Amino acid sequence: MATFSPPFRRKSPYMPFGDQRNAPFYGRDILSVKQFKRSDLEYIFGVAHEMREMVERVGSFDLLKGKILANLFYEPSTRTSSSFTSAMERLGGSVIPINEVRYSSVSKGESLPDTIRTLECYADVIVLRHPEVGASALAAQYARKPIINAGDGVGEHPTQALLDLFTIFSELGQMDGITVTMLGDLKYGRTVHSLARLLSLYDVRLNYVSPDILRMPPEIIQELGDKSIPQAEFDALEPVLPQSDVLYVTRVQKERFEDQQVYESVKGAFIITPETMHNAKERMIVMHPLPRVGEIHMDVDADPRAAYFRQMEYGLYVRMALLAMVLGKA
Amino acid sequence: MATFSPPFRRKSPYMPFGDQRNAPFYGRDILSVKQFKRSDLEYIFGVAHEMREMVERVGSFDLLKGKILANLFYEPSTRTSSSFTSAMERLGGSVIPINEVRYSSVSKGESLPDTIRTLECYADVIVLRHPEVGASALAAQYARKPIINAGDGVGEHPTQALLDLFTIFSELGQMDGITVTMLGDLKYGRTVHSLARLLSLYDVRLNYVSPDILRMPPEIIQELGDKSIPQAEFDALEPVLPQSDVLYVTRVQKERFEDQQVYESVKGAFIITPETMHNAKERMIVMHPLPRVGEIHMDVDADPRAAYFRQMEYGLYVRMALLAMVLGKA
Amino acid sequence: MATFSPPFRRKSPYMPFGDQRNAPFYGRDILSVKQFKRSDLEYIFGVAHEMREMVERVGSFDLLKGKILANLFYEPSTRTSSSFTSAMERLGGSVIPINEVRYSSVSKGESLPDTIRTLECYADVIVLRHPEVGASALAAQYARKPIINAGDGVGEHPTQALLDLFTIFSELGQMDGITVTMLGDLKYGRTVHSLARLLSLYDVRLNYVSPDILRMPPEIIQELGDKSIPQAEFDALEPVLPQSDVLYVTRVQKERFEDQQVYESVKGAFIITPETMHNAKERMIVMHPLPRVGEIHMDVDADPRAAYFRQMEYGLYVRMALLAMVLGKA
Repeated sequence: MATFSPPFRRKSPYMPFGDQRNAPFYGRDILSVKQFKRSDLEYIFGVAHEMREMVERVGSFDLLKGKILANLFYEPSTRTSSSFTSAMERLGGSVIPINEVRYSSVSKGESLPDTIRTLECYADVIVLRHPEVGASALAAQYARKPIINAGDGVGEHPTQALLDLFTIFSELGQMDGITVTMLGDLKYGRTVHSLARLLSLYDVRLNYVSPDILRMPPEIIQELGDKSIPQAEFDALEPVLPQSDVLYVTRVQKERFEDQQVYESVKGAFIITPETMHNAKERMIVMHPLPRVGEIHMDVDADPRAAYFRQMEYGLYVRMALLAMVLGKA
Repeated sequence: MATFSPPFRRKSPYMPFGDQRNAPFYGRDILSVKQFKRSDLEYIFGVAHEMREMVERVGSFDLLKGKILANLFYEPSTRTSSSFTSAMERLGGSVIPINEVRYSSVSKGESLPDTIRTLECYADVIVLRHPEVGASALAAQYARKPIINAGDGVGEHPTQALLDLFTIFSELGQMDGITVTMLGDLKYGRTVHSLARLLSLYDVRLNYVSPDILRMPPEIIQELGDKSIPQAEFDALEPVLPQSDVLYVTRVQKERFEDQQVYESVKGAFIITPETMHNAKERMIVMHPLPRVGEIHMDVDADPRAAYFRQMEYGLYVRMALLAMVLGKA
Repeated sequence: MATFSPPFRRKSPYMPFGDQRNAPFYGRDILSVKQFKRSDLEYIFGVAHEMREMVERVGSFDLLKGKILANLFYEPSTRTSSSFTSAMERLGGSVIPINEVRYSSVSKGESLPDTIRTLECYADVIVLRHPEVGASALAAQYARKPIINAGDGVGEHPTQALLDLFTIFSELGQMDGITVTMLGDLKYGRTVHSLARLLSLYDVRLNYVSPDILRMPPEIIQELGDKSIPQAEFDALEPVLPQSDVLYVTRVQKERFEDQQVYESVKGAFIITPETMHNAKERMIVMHPLPRVGEIHMDVDADPRAAYFRQMEYGLYVRMALLAMVLGKA
């Protein structure tokens, strides 16, 4: 019997050897949109664009062959989970799917740090979806391997915001000078909050169209105001649609209204139909984080400006880029 | 920052370039047994036979390396789901397993077309199991990627029927001239309905053995009668067993009977034991779609004529063939 | 149409051709710690050590490329399931994840032997977790492919015991002459029972520290006594800690106590804190099968003697070794 020794303590991935400028996100966590500068976004979108070109040419390639992603979902999200799985598989890597945490003994009283420190023995990167705000930051504090936040309750969902921005970039070819109109529930949607923050890194104009009780939170307006981003609030889409380059639609949920008569009286104003599109720019794009439940009529789908399914595809490229980057392969 | 452009609109897989005769199923959906001609079956079984030879020689190979299957199951079916997963993995491809749709926000109000159009951003082919008749046809109407129907409620389960037929082909070496006896619940079993339809493309004789209340539906008998297929109905197996080349057993469920005394009086007639096999041909095969719950006694398993586990293996080869074909690699 | 023939009956993997001495576990099942001799353990740990060196050098490699593992979990166990998935993926193989058996029609009345004989049509090796004692042995009786027991109720969990022993080997560099102290619930924990049995193959000393109602079962003490293993029982850790080379901690569950006052009076004696560690050897290791729920204070984690997360990593290497061995590739 040979003599064994305790495990070789690997170098932290947070201290990469070699030229950091060539791998700026190597070993880093992706936790919040607040961590990105404009130059970071350009770097990410450059890599995402390369991913798209590779997928369109060859479908998949072996950049992350031998790497393992633990896809740890404490609450179900087929869309996000499938997107990360596909991203990893198109890069030649493998996935440990963990979708049943709520039934599992892992969740029975075990702390999140313990679960994370167990899984990082098996995987090279962890994607985490968790119902509690701050869960990803807590996980990252304990993990030696990179953590990617795939949604922490009402907190953040940074990869959604990145894919939203990459969609605008790719579809419009520019960011500076554009007008983005956000429509629907602007109070509770973490999606629009994160996107607004990212957009504030550019020279954009923002319109907020919502029912009175679902207005964009004052702290977001304040934050963007401090950066001199032009913002305006409306209770109807008509006045601002003709000037919009992007129409970002979110769902107005019935349950948000105490008075159902108020809901009934306003809901029609937040549904997009082919008629709505008559007054929009010819090169405007309609976005939606999906799933939609009636906010955009299916007859709009055939309109080339309907970008919401392409948006899903851009999401794949952004997630491929992020996985490659944090694993030092971009 | 480079200038980006909207995604290159890929060619529809339904319009393959090159010689269509060499890839007759490239980009097509597999929705119903009604879509197949006899020559189609010969082509599929030829490919399935090659798959079997490759698996027996090398286990797996990289024909679909880089391709991704979305395995979308709205209702659980471990057997079918595992079979498709294995088929894809033995061909070197990857799988996005989606087994939890009923818990997921994807299912909360999102339409099937939207779910499909999202998943096709991530995958190259979609296998769909859904509790509603027509779900796969609806999905195929919206999808740019091929849809394979893995069961739509009481509707169809075409890959089951194909594997049943491939089993008969492979075990008996011929189809024309054989006698197939179907036993058990012939009224509600979509399996026997689809198989009967496929068999009617050949020169076969069909016997239907069932309790009176579970007889083969008149429309199936009519349909096969119009094709001059000899058919006969019985309420006991004895008279037809000695002439049968295939005995296809299905389960008689207690719940189908209003009068439990009737159930008790007939159930014994539909259970296969080693004694039953004494009167069968030496080269007859016993088939069953599985799972079985007592319809075939475990003591029959050792009989070389018991083909129901080999049937599962033939299913793997048929599904490998279908995946390779619709992805243009067969 | 070519003529087909019934499937070529593959050689049983239990009768490998070539030199059996070079592949002593090829085609075998892993069901119980009782099946291992000391020389078997040395062989397994030698392979596991090689796996560790390969993972540390290259992360993953293609030893089992093209092989498929069916990961069949009748009850959830994220930790064990993820560990086997990672082990297979790091060896270049693929996994069929089956985590939903309880919802599936496969489980509705279908016998375990039928499920196993179906899955072995799709996979090359089956890992089975099942709530009933003896389930893996039953499965192995019917399967042509190797079965690895990943826990059968209160029965065995042999890969856990092997990883525990491999941890001690690797961390301490030897087995003979060491003292292992087991702490907590020694009555119901299959983990400590299996580990005690494996340890009895070596020249070790065992201390059992537990509340009176949770003492090591007499049959285990008898069994080890017959092998002349020195054993001693205690109700407190203090007297034995300074002489211990391994402290193996398990959870004392409140529910085991009829009288909650008794629980309250004893529980503090079975919690490890940084203070506890003051009296331990400098090279002692603390182990725990995880999940922990308070038995070891988080402040102990930074102590280099805290081996419980490294233990998870050793588990990966042991499972990689077992998979490679039963598939004839070690």
